[in-house]
Amino acid sequence: MGETLLPKRVALPVFASDALSSVAYAPDEIFLTLSMGGLTAYAFNWQIGIAVVVVMLTVVASYRQNVHAYPSGGGDYEVATVNLGRNAGLTVASALMVDYVLTVAVSISSGVQNAAAALPFLKGHESAAAVGLVALLTAVNLRGAKESGRAFAIPTYLFMASIALMAIWGYTQYALGTLPQVESAKYDIAAEDPFAGAVSGVAMAYLLARAFSSGCAALTGVEAISNGVPAFRKPKSRNAATTLLLLGTISIVMLMSIIVLADLMDLRYVEDPAHQLLLDGKPVGDGYVQETVIGQLAAALFQGVPPLFYFVIACTGIILVLAANTAFNGFPVLASILARDGHLPRQLHTRGDRLAFSNGIVTLAAAAGVLIVAFDAEVTKLIQLYIVGVFVSFTLSQLGMIRHWTRLLAEETDPAERGRMHRSRGVNAFGLAMTATVLVIVLVTKFLAGAWIAILAMVAVFLVMRGISRHYDRVALELAVDESDVALPARVHGIVLVSKLHKPTMRAIAYARLGQPSSLEAVSVNLDPDDSAELARRWDELRVPIPLRVLDSPYREVVRPIVRYVKTKRTQNPRDIVTIYIPEYVVGRWWEQLLHNQTALRLKARLLFLPGVLVVSVPYQLASAQRVKKDHARPTPGDVRRGIGGRSGG
Amino acid sequence: MGETLLPKRVALPVFASDALSSVAYAPDEIFLTLSMGGLTAYAFNWQIGIAVVVVMLTVVASYRQNVHAYPSGGGDYEVATVNLGRNAGLTVASALMVDYVLTVAVSISSGVQNAAAALPFLKGHESAAAVGLVALLTAVNLRGAKESGRAFAIPTYLFMASIALMAIWGYTQYALGTLPQVESAKYDIAAEDPFAGAVSGVAMAYLLARAFSSGCAALTGVEAISNGVPAFRKPKSRNAATTLLLLGTISIVMLMSIIVLADLMDLRYVEDPAHQLLLDGKPVGDGYVQETVIGQLAAALFQGVPPLFYFVIACTGIILVLAANTAFNGFPVLASILARDGHLPRQLHTRGDRLAFSNGIVTLAAAAGVLIVAFDAEVTKLIQLYIVGVFVSFTLSQLGMIRHWTRLLAEETDPAERGRMHRSRGVNAFGLAMTATVLVIVLVTKFLAGAWIAILAMVAVFLVMRGISRHYDRVALELAVDESDVALPARVHGIVLVSKLHKPTMRAIAYARLGQPSSLEAVSVNLDPDDSAELARRWDELRVPIPLRVLDSPYREVVRPIVRYVKTKRTQNPRDIVTIYIPEYVVGRWWEQLLHNQTALRLKARLLFLPGVLVVSVPYQLASAQRVKKDHARPTPGDVRRGIGGRSGG
Repeated sequence: MGETLLPKRVALPVFASDALSSVAYAPDEIFLTLSMGGLTAYAFNWQIGIAVVVVMLTVVASYRQNVHAYPSGGGDYEVATVNLGRNAGLTVASALMVDYVLTVAVSISSGVQNAAAALPFLKGHESAAAVGLVALLTAVNLRGAKESGRAFAIPTYLFMASIALMAIWGYTQYALGTLPQVESAKYDIAAEDPFAGAVSGVAMAYLLARAFSSGCAALTGVEAISNGVPAFRKPKSRNAATTLLLLGTISIVMLMSIIVLADLMDLRYVEDPAHQLLLDGKPVGDGYVQETVIGQLAAALFQGVPPLFYFVIACTGIILVLAANTAFNGFPVLASILARDGHLPRQLHTRGDRLAFSNGIVTLAAAAGVLIVAFDAEVTKLIQLYIVGVFVSFTLSQLGMIRHWTRLLAEETDPAERGRMHRSRGVNAFGLAMTATVLVIVLVTKFLAGAWIAILAMVAVFLVMRGISRHYDRVALELAVDESDVALPARVHGIVLVSKLHKPTMRAIAYARLGQPSSLEAVSVNLDPDDSAELARRWDELRVPIPLRVLDSPYREVVRPIVRYVKTKRTQNPRDIVTIYIPEYVVGRWWEQLLHNQTALRLKARLLFLPGVLVVSVPYQLASAQRVKKDHARPTPGDVRRGIGGRSGG
Repeated sequence: MGETLLPKRVALPVFASDALSSVAYAPDEIFLTLSMGGLTAYAFNWQIGIAVVVVMLTVVASYRQNVHAYPSGGGDYEVATVNLGRNAGLTVASALMVDYVLTVAVSISSGVQNAAAALPFLKGHESAAAVGLVALLTAVNLRGAKESGRAFAIPTYLFMASIALMAIWGYTQYALGTLPQVESAKYDIAAEDPFAGAVSGVAMAYLLARAFSSGCAALTGVEAISNGVPAFRKPKSRNAATTLLLLGTISIVMLMSIIVLADLMDLRYVEDPAHQLLLDGKPVGDGYVQETVIGQLAAALFQGVPPLFYFVIACTGIILVLAANTAFNGFPVLASILARDGHLPRQLHTRGDRLAFSNGIVTLAAAAGVLIVAFDAEVTKLIQLYIVGVFVSFTLSQLGMIRHWTRLLAEETDPAERGRMHRSRGVNAFGLAMTATVLVIVLVTKFLAGAWIAILAMVAVFLVMRGISRHYDRVALELAVDESDVALPARVHGIVLVSKLHKPTMRAIAYARLGQPSSLEAVSVNLDPDDSAELARRWDELRVPIPLRVLDSPYREVVRPIVRYVKTKRTQNPRDIVTIYIPEYVVGRWWEQLLHNQTALRLKARLLFLPGVLVVSVPYQLASAQRVKKDHARPTPGDVRRGIGGRSGG
């Protein structure tokens, strides 16, 4: 395992799959939302697309500022925390965590919907297939497969190639005047109820705003690069900024290519095909199966060339699964940063605590699974919950950046530098205006449709994290070093716990004697008079050099008599400490562990609560303990984007 | 909590509910099995009853020998182990454990069937009701309600009273010539297929044997007293023997009362009522609902007095639930004895390990639940699995007793004593002949009908227990003290693990210094250069009296660098030992525990595998640790029958 920094051509696919994959569902959601207003509204599709592109450009420009100013990989969370305080940082973090869950749910659901265009047997079983895919991703990430940049690069570039192929093929035919229509072109679109008939300007504006806010799903994942600056080659910030621009450009080109092509080919993609699609004035009914936008385009364009059709669908499906996987990668990285700052359990900060990572991954997968089942793997419904978090985080981040530049400007005197800072602040201010506007539009158009669920989840995550920070703060205060910690205890009383007279006991006694305590005795609990008598006999026979005390236990308890005895010792000499040596067996198999040390475990758990009592585990390694292999550092999800990992393919 | 020995009048109900409750289903199974042979076979009902009574008398007589010879409460397991060896003992133990599961399944299923006579809405939902009852019993036993003899006494005596009332009422009317017929008396019984028409003598013998083996279910629970001798008042053995005789007599009287009464009242209880019951030669069809024997008798006898009918049904239901509860009580007692002998995990032997007890209780309940669901709470099907275990244990126990007397006879010279021993051996020999015969009959008539499942389970339990014993034996051998344990290590190197410089660290350092190790240093892992620099600065500032060493960790791991460092220390000085002091926080709430010490836990688990390394937990009790209440000894199931417990009602 080594540190592996990513060249731009590898970094792009590593961080881009989430952002690019949204091309597979953002156009669908634009068309679908507009369809509710009938063909009048439907015609606005490319204008909506352009509005999304404008936001995208603004966000990319803003984040290019972020990666220069905050190259440490903390991303929006760091920007918000440093400039706006802890609560703002926690808000961003909560928003991002909830959006990770939705990334998994939306990407996988869309992947299954797209796959259904090529694999018709999936129809009607989308939810089960999506849950199965989530389970598979979970298993792969729990297993800790070694990530490599190449694993991301190949499918991402293939997806770009497939969309490029479709666009070039399509626009060439358009230039030649041979562009075919898609199969759904023959249908009329009936407006849905509130938008049918004479639609007011307000209603239409609302519809357009809603289509725009769904289209903004194309922006998710753009912030990923700002979390991954440390994984770039030097000059890190500049390379990251360049990659970000590249990512933005590719995203925009792909998005607009698909929207315009769909418009040219008269594609119909509606919310309720059975009733909204009309053939000769009559609804097509429940028999009609509506394919995704990419599915319909590919089917029409590559009508005579099935391999190309399947190629496009396969690339789309794979990129969507990869996008879901980025959540599995990004989640531990974010959790690690939050743990470092005391907002999540500390053990998430260090690598190697697989249990903690596993819990995080399972939680992520379970939450995504619940959403998929609850919304029946329908992207249109899930998208209503999505992107709230992203725009909360965009907005707070831009606000933080403005504060950042204002603070720097207060100290900077160099006019050239000040000019650059002013320009940067201008970019972020424009970004703030834009993202705040979008956030408001998203909240207004999506709140009742489902965004409230996401917001509720964010509040819950926020409260849990704040509770954890407060706990750590309280503990830190309680533990701060003061004068009271200098005094040494007076004496040490050693106690060796004995159940039988065997090697582990002898070893514990030998080690206890090395500690030279003021007093040392062996203590055993009388569970059976015969056993105790035999123990005492052997004790004398072997001339064990410390005295043996047998505690009575009329009800065959072990823990209580010992705790009581130790407490008495402590009460007699409050300034002394008591050191308790517990012989422990070390075995190699998990079921062997169940057969040993259970009493020792309970005893230790109980003794911890007695002040001035030390517990010493004296291990005795049984032969089977040698079976345990040395543990190797296994990779954890998110290694590549932290600059840790194997072959980068570069 | 005190030691409470049971007078006979309390001991009887404590140990009798299982044995007496079988009166509620044993007659049913005799009638039902005979019904397959039509009215010809059906007439044999009281002869079968008498055969069961003969076996019962023999078994009671034999067990009166057991309680005198083995008064320690080990019961059949002890008799078999001492006289026939470990494998025989384990066979008995496996058989008893499987039968505990079946006691729960059969008793609860029968209880629900009886209750359905009074509560018709239970019809068709027997399985769900039975599972619910098992869950309730499990909850009560997990909770650890304080047992008292009175809790057993009242329902048991009420049940006896209710059956006595029914019998006296019935026989008085019979004497007066006014005994009514039961409602089903009007039906004819059609023989079932293999027994219809001209039945061969062999087929009829087989049917009678099968009815007899089902009727022997009345014998389950008779052995309970032999496991409970220590809970009796002195003279323990004599009181236990007397109680056993009393129990046998009451059982026999109740069983025969019911069978004869049912015969006199022309009761029909058949396997397949829809087809077997004929009215004017035509089957009654699916509409007919067949009540239990006690249900039918009570309904006919108390036709004008509904309260008495409900009283009988209620007492029957309650005694059956109580019988199921005896399995929850007996199981931990048996497990404790098996654990003492190393056949089950050791922690089951001591009281107070609630987790271990809980696991046992949940396992018992889960297994019973599976059986109830699998066999749809039908007593007739479950009974096919039952009593194999009991008769395996009866037979081996009698064989053991014969060996026991033979061994004693070899040493005894007093003629009077020898005479008594000869007589006892005679009783046990007769018992062996009888129980072995029944066992063969049971195996032959039930094997394919379901007994194979019970046998398979016994083999599995046997193998697990033998695996555990072998493991403990191997470990004991490996741990036996020999010459190699006398040498003291040369020196002790102390290491205090430091993450931050706070009170727990200062305390760990102070305690470590008290141990006067040859060398002492503090070790920290560099997870963040800034934090490490700050730690070093504070270390100097506070003039901490031991050196600080910071270990590098490029990938933010904690455990690996420390383990590697400790290994190096050990390799340099193989004869020395390394003592590692880990400061630990002690908190009071479970979720706080999740936020602390996780790294310490992993570290300790890993360090245990290094030979010559001691781990010392230095606890620091945070304020919240004082929330933890002192743990009180909570009662565990089976206390009453071990002579531990509260008010005995006596």
